[in-house]
Amino acid sequence: TKTESPKPTKVQELHVYEINERDRGSPAYLRLSKKEVNSLGDLVPFSNKIYSGNLEKRVGITAGLCILIQHVPEKKGDRYEAIYSFYFGDYGHIAVQGAYLTYEDTYLAVTGGSGIFEGVSGQVKLKQIIFPFKLFYTFYLKGIPDLPADLLGTPVEPSPSVEPSPAAKACESTVPNFTK
Amino acid sequence: TKTESPKPTKVQELHVYEINERDRGSPAYLRLSKKEVNSLGDLVPFSNKIYSGNLEKRVGITAGLCILIQHVPEKKGDRYEAIYSFYFGDYGHIAVQGAYLTYEDTYLAVTGGSGIFEGVSGQVKLKQIIFPFKLFYTFYLKGIPDLPADLLGTPVEPSPSVEPSPAAKACESTVPNFTK
Amino acid sequence: TKTESPKPTKVQELHVYEINERDRGSPAYLRLSKKEVNSLGDLVPFSNKIYSGNLEKRVGITAGLCILIQHVPEKKGDRYEAIYSFYFGDYGHIAVQGAYLTYEDTYLAVTGGSGIFEGVSGQVKLKQIIFPFKLFYTFYLKGIPDLPADLLGTPVEPSPSVEPSPAAKACESTVPNFTK
Repeated sequence: TKTESPKPTKVQELHVYEINERDRGSPAYLRLSKKEVNSLGDLVPFSNKIYSGNLEKRVGITAGLCILIQHVPEKKGDRYEAIYSFYFGDYGHIAVQGAYLTYEDTYLAVTGGSGIFEGVSGQVKLKQIIFPFKLFYTFYLKGIPDLPADLLGTPVEPSPSVEPSPAAKACESTVPNFTK
Repeated sequence: TKTESPKPTKVQELHVYEINERDRGSPAYLRLSKKEVNSLGDLVPFSNKIYSGNLEKRVGITAGLCILIQHVPEKKGDRYEAIYSFYFGDYGHIAVQGAYLTYEDTYLAVTGGSGIFEGVSGQVKLKQIIFPFKLFYTFYLKGIPDLPADLLGTPVEPSPSVEPSPAAKACESTVPNFTK
Repeated sequence: TKTESPKPTKVQELHVYEINERDRGSPAYLRLSKKEVNSLGDLVPFSNKIYSGNLEKRVGITAGLCILIQHVPEKKGDRYEAIYSFYFGDYGHIAVQGAYLTYEDTYLAVTGGSGIFEGVSGQVKLKQIIFPFKLFYTFYLKGIPDLPADLLGTPVEPSPSVEPSPAAKACESTVPNFTK
């Protein structure tokens, strides 16, 4: 056992884009409820690509499960319970859990992490841009050392037309050993 | 980034009732094991209502997944791994993970939260009252500011006959923007 | 509410072996993708036995879910998102989430715990010995009191031939009320 300095208490913001480029066979909508309308019983494993908030670097992937909780007809959308991780290549990963509403922004819990995110806590704001293909996240992270410059940089303002830089999209500009 | 004051270290208790009023299509027992007795392979998405411990306020819902781990014939029950969240309307949510035994009380881990529960840690005692329709939870929470009065109040002693107050049941007495 | 002393900040290492002795009907590979090759959509609930790192004590079980994210042909293996718990009998449990790669060691996030692991944070290294039957874990745990001697002791060096002591395997040498 070794002793560490006290936990940092400052809040660090981290921005990422999650983009479904339709080349990962994701999402896999499992209609296990066997009902025509999305219903409790349906499960949706998924995995998309993630890019840095400035869209200059391919970072890695998301991976996890959405659990359909409720179809919400008055919002023309659905409530999911989402349990997934964000992978940042050699930097490690962040695990999250919370509500994913197809019609509204939500905050999810940051439940833990590995690598530079070991011992992390906090929450993350999920902003939907184009359902379900383009999302923007703002993490509010506590308990970890200063984030590397690779993951910082001014985020691009979320809008339907945002795209990763060509070098990021081609995986020529990435974080170290980005997650495929 | 901004600096926060050090994490509060006191333990706060929070009591809630989870009640299945059979109007949410929950649980969805997915017999994916294709065996007649409950077996590993079965999955059970669920979502129930939650009320404050004093049963005076509708608070929100639970949402998540139970994974059947083992049928326990000598206890005439089952072991599940449960991964779910408690939603408290505008106050945010708490994510938990751990064992749900149909025949015995358990403690689950609090894995994170959002809103007033951002950065939370601790555990929660699950007390079954009527399987699987009425449960009583005692959260032991650390790392968060003082809970709002809305969520406090003396809990009603758990018993099979407890019911939410008529105003809570009718959603006339609720926390702000309670989760539906 | 009661006040606790500040969180311990030292890191404690904890070693456990996870062994599939093929007597729990685990894993349950649910080929919900309906594809011949492992694909997104497949889900794998599982539960194995765990032993102390010195292989002298039966400790309990693992329980949870692997979500197939991607078949990785160049590695002849698969990427899973793993969400599960380690049960330590009366001592409580630890919940984890992260990547399980069938071809490479990974670090998962420790997301919370109960009992002596209440309020825990940190990460855990997963080392595969024989896929998918024998694994060795090194937990790096923060925020909890000193671990009991039962769970400590010098770990046996991981190798394909390691086996629990006969007394541990026969459940004659266990932690208190080990999880079955």
